[in-house]
Amino acid sequence: MSDIYKKTHMCGVLTEKNIEEQVVLNGWVQKRRNLGGLIFCDIRDKTGIVQVVFNDKIPQELFEKADRLRSEYVVGVKGIVKERESKNPDLATGGIEVFAEDLVIYSEADTPPIYIKDDDNVDDNLRLKYRYLDLRKHKMQQNLTFRHKLTKLARDYFDSQGFTEVETPMMIKSTPEGARDYLVPSRVSPGSFYALPQSPQMYKQLLMVAGTDRYMQIVKCFRDEDLRADRQPEFTQIDLEMSFVDQDDVIEIQEGFLKRVFKELMNIEIETPFPRISYQEAMERYGSDKPDTRFGFELKKLNDIVSGCEFKVFTDALAAGGDVRGICITGGASQYTRKKIDKLTEAVKSYGAKGMVWIKIEEDKIASSVNKFFSPEELGKIANVFEAKAGDLILIISDKKQVVFDSLGFLRRHIAGEMGLLDDHQYNLLWVVDFPLYEYDEETGEYHAKHHPFTSPNPEDLDRLESDPGSVKAQAYDIVLNGVELGGGSIRIHDRNLQERMFRVLGLSQEEIDEKFGFLVEAFKYGAPPHGGLAYGLDRLVMLLTHQSSIREVIAFPKNQAAQCMVSQAPSPVSEEQLAELGIRLEKTEE
Amino acid sequence: MSDIYKKTHMCGVLTEKNIEEQVVLNGWVQKRRNLGGLIFCDIRDKTGIVQVVFNDKIPQELFEKADRLRSEYVVGVKGIVKERESKNPDLATGGIEVFAEDLVIYSEADTPPIYIKDDDNVDDNLRLKYRYLDLRKHKMQQNLTFRHKLTKLARDYFDSQGFTEVETPMMIKSTPEGARDYLVPSRVSPGSFYALPQSPQMYKQLLMVAGTDRYMQIVKCFRDEDLRADRQPEFTQIDLEMSFVDQDDVIEIQEGFLKRVFKELMNIEIETPFPRISYQEAMERYGSDKPDTRFGFELKKLNDIVSGCEFKVFTDALAAGGDVRGICITGGASQYTRKKIDKLTEAVKSYGAKGMVWIKIEEDKIASSVNKFFSPEELGKIANVFEAKAGDLILIISDKKQVVFDSLGFLRRHIAGEMGLLDDHQYNLLWVVDFPLYEYDEETGEYHAKHHPFTSPNPEDLDRLESDPGSVKAQAYDIVLNGVELGGGSIRIHDRNLQERMFRVLGLSQEEIDEKFGFLVEAFKYGAPPHGGLAYGLDRLVMLLTHQSSIREVIAFPKNQAAQCMVSQAPSPVSEEQLAELGIRLEKTEE
Repeated sequence: MSDIYKKTHMCGVLTEKNIEEQVVLNGWVQKRRNLGGLIFCDIRDKTGIVQVVFNDKIPQELFEKADRLRSEYVVGVKGIVKERESKNPDLATGGIEVFAEDLVIYSEADTPPIYIKDDDNVDDNLRLKYRYLDLRKHKMQQNLTFRHKLTKLARDYFDSQGFTEVETPMMIKSTPEGARDYLVPSRVSPGSFYALPQSPQMYKQLLMVAGTDRYMQIVKCFRDEDLRADRQPEFTQIDLEMSFVDQDDVIEIQEGFLKRVFKELMNIEIETPFPRISYQEAMERYGSDKPDTRFGFELKKLNDIVSGCEFKVFTDALAAGGDVRGICITGGASQYTRKKIDKLTEAVKSYGAKGMVWIKIEEDKIASSVNKFFSPEELGKIANVFEAKAGDLILIISDKKQVVFDSLGFLRRHIAGEMGLLDDHQYNLLWVVDFPLYEYDEETGEYHAKHHPFTSPNPEDLDRLESDPGSVKAQAYDIVLNGVELGGGSIRIHDRNLQERMFRVLGLSQEEIDEKFGFLVEAFKYGAPPHGGLAYGLDRLVMLLTHQSSIREVIAFPKNQAAQCMVSQAPSPVSEEQLAELGIRLEKTEE
Repeated sequence: MSDIYKKTHMCGVLTEKNIEEQVVLNGWVQKRRNLGGLIFCDIRDKTGIVQVVFNDKIPQELFEKADRLRSEYVVGVKGIVKERESKNPDLATGGIEVFAEDLVIYSEADTPPIYIKDDDNVDDNLRLKYRYLDLRKHKMQQNLTFRHKLTKLARDYFDSQGFTEVETPMMIKSTPEGARDYLVPSRVSPGSFYALPQSPQMYKQLLMVAGTDRYMQIVKCFRDEDLRADRQPEFTQIDLEMSFVDQDDVIEIQEGFLKRVFKELMNIEIETPFPRISYQEAMERYGSDKPDTRFGFELKKLNDIVSGCEFKVFTDALAAGGDVRGICITGGASQYTRKKIDKLTEAVKSYGAKGMVWIKIEEDKIASSVNKFFSPEELGKIANVFEAKAGDLILIISDKKQVVFDSLGFLRRHIAGEMGLLDDHQYNLLWVVDFPLYEYDEETGEYHAKHHPFTSPNPEDLDRLESDPGSVKAQAYDIVLNGVELGGGSIRIHDRNLQERMFRVLGLSQEEIDEKFGFLVEAFKYGAPPHGGLAYGLDRLVMLLTHQSSIREVIAFPKNQAAQCMVSQAPSPVSEEQLAELGIRLEKTEE
């Protein structure tokens, strides 16, 4: 009754071991060549490609059918595996070929608009429009498979550690804090809206209040932000929460997880525990709260050494409470010409720096952009801070602390990249801890929560919560891999009074607290356990481990930079009836 | 530094084996009694309850602290496990108690608005509002744990069968077919909307076109429907799709899955293969396309036997092309008094039946509601069709076919329930197959897809697709457990021409096809494999296996009947700024 050939093997797995076996394969025609009495046809599935031969010993009808095959036809082939005369060492199946005995054509195909090969260099939007063809590429299917294996491993591991996967709701209350919510109009309550979750934060905390003890979920989250950089409107988190734990407990569980990820998916032994570095040390040494420690170029503070100098740019910065700091690019002097240094100076402007000073240590002298203001001895002193040697390049930024850190943090990583020092196959994992609880916004004069408003302050800093918020440290931690934040979390507040204090320092009135977070504060009334957790950005984690340059490469159907699904052309206009049912109207757009 | 006690055991697992061990427990105070010099305190976590004793041998300060404990305080206790003098056989831990040596109070608690016990019979809305307390109940945590285990098992099983879990997008194109979409306004493209998926149907088919071969996903789906019965706006599917398969392949894989579910989660061996019954047979024997076969009461057709009778209701129904069918309730005569029969007659009205005929077989005579029209011999003939014996009750409906089926299908299950014949611990699994491809809508005179428009017709019916759509069978299948549809699926169309024919029979113009489904039809141009799949309703599956009466009992944070989240009070009004950014306005609601 059925015309479907039951496959005996996937295409990519056949080797010399299968010689003389009769096999049935299903797949797509990668290419077909007719060499007179011999047709060679490469059949592809997600595991790889195998060569099928139609020779003159088969019935004429079958040979003619094979001759009709074109690229991307979908076929079933029955045949015998034979050793190949001229082996192809580049192909996993290159030692064998399959002599066809039968062939069924399931589907014909028009010439596809993109080629099905990994290095096909076509326009991103074309790839996204024909995603179902783009995903036929071996690399793309491998990315999806890797992602599957990683989520499978996460579920296995956390299950073995007593975590329960619980689904939290997708249609929740809008609490306009942080990023912008995606909204969903309610039909039953016209004028009211659900929001899609930016994270299941409050629900996972409620699960702790409910006694679930250890929660995990791999879950879609949503942020309606501008898609600069490599962001997606919907992204996926591995989300975790535990009761009756402190920071060390959470960190230990995560290290066990990442150790297994590297061991089982990458065959790499990584050492635990990972190094921990305080936020302050990370900033002072690397100019970043997600330091890449695969290379040096560490920041040095020059405030003392330049405090009495004649260069007004430095002394003005210091007088304004800023910093003068620099990095030393070992062996960078020859590589960085004036022109290339000018480019760097231009690049740091986007981090707020108004300029950059450079010093080149040469065999017999010290060249610099500030020779007018500094004697060779003074420049030598600066060079000594970095223990700079001939051939090194020193770059200095003087400005507000944050601008100095951001600029130098950018420079050291950017230059390391240009100098080829970023080894994709070295994995430096570390924890950044002791974050400040609050971030001060100079423009508004307000404090914001550095992580989120549910993060617990360090107990010893509690009495400074109102009097000196800027000095309060948080029980928060980020896990960083090669300069990229994989995830972050914190011990949460579980005391309703402390939670309300926290909200008040953030400038929320009692009314706002009640309206936005009242249900969480109320939940804390009825016995909340101490708890904490963490969330990983799954897309980014998979991207890094598969060495892809964008999270779009590890998402089956990503949106483009305009947040559109190129396959289905979403978003799209909807009918008047749909809008009327929801009680909403479109603003007239002005021409 | 940390004041968190590391627990050595969960509360519910301690037994006589742990006697003399020092243990550390974390949990909630279930109750506390001070019997003078002795305080008994039940400590609860999700695994169960254990009794902790504070006696007069401990420091006074500790005893006083214990005396301050109240219900739902969150505590850590260190102590020694001792054999209990008066054992409590109702409690898993009833053989032991823990003599406390230390106590830490993590949180105090107000008196909770609902009691934390399984049989607390409070209002549903109160339970939903204080869901974090409701979920503290042992039964509720067990439901969440069962759900976790089932999804874990599904992932393990399908992974072992070569399935890849792939995440499909949550913000997709609105295609107003079937149920109502939830919409998400786009800020980047004002006036355009995403829809939340009713199912990942088209995306999983695209994955097959992309060569993913076997796909699975446990995924949230959304339908903006009125919440009559036991529905939720967001629900979860176990979603599956396979390439190069026929119906038997899909069914075989699913039977392997369900066999493991019953074995590993219920410790029940179920036999495979499951019975298969055609849609037509299911309707004729059970009046339902999801028959409950745990009991008899099968439908019998009486058309021939009553065709010449004097009872105009029957003959009119037959003349109008309808049916006369009945069921025989074995031993139902005495149980169903006139009054109870009247109630049944009333109940079938909601299925469209205008009336119901009853016949009671008594020892010496046959009583019925139609004695005036039928001779005892004629009634005897009817009774013989059912092989009815004394004490049996026959119920007959005459009407349009569908009304007859629906009414009798309802009656047999309803009465089986009333008579206590529905054994919760018997599991009758079966496949319903050979569904009609189309459903005829009498009101509009149009054909609708019985499953969905991607379902493949039976190949042998292809030539009647346009000429006699009503007679075309689909390659569709539902899996049914005890009268409840657990899931359903089909072999899909993978030929673009057939897909377009299908859409045209459904009355879509070429323009509508292009706009709504163009991308799928286009994808079929470039080589689509034969494929098919299935989706389970996870909530319902978990509900049935945990013997709950509502899917709300197996969802952590369900919505209420007005689609509200009682915990967070979603949906809620949003700010003018949020609406302005989205380019939408609220309709003025009239007072």
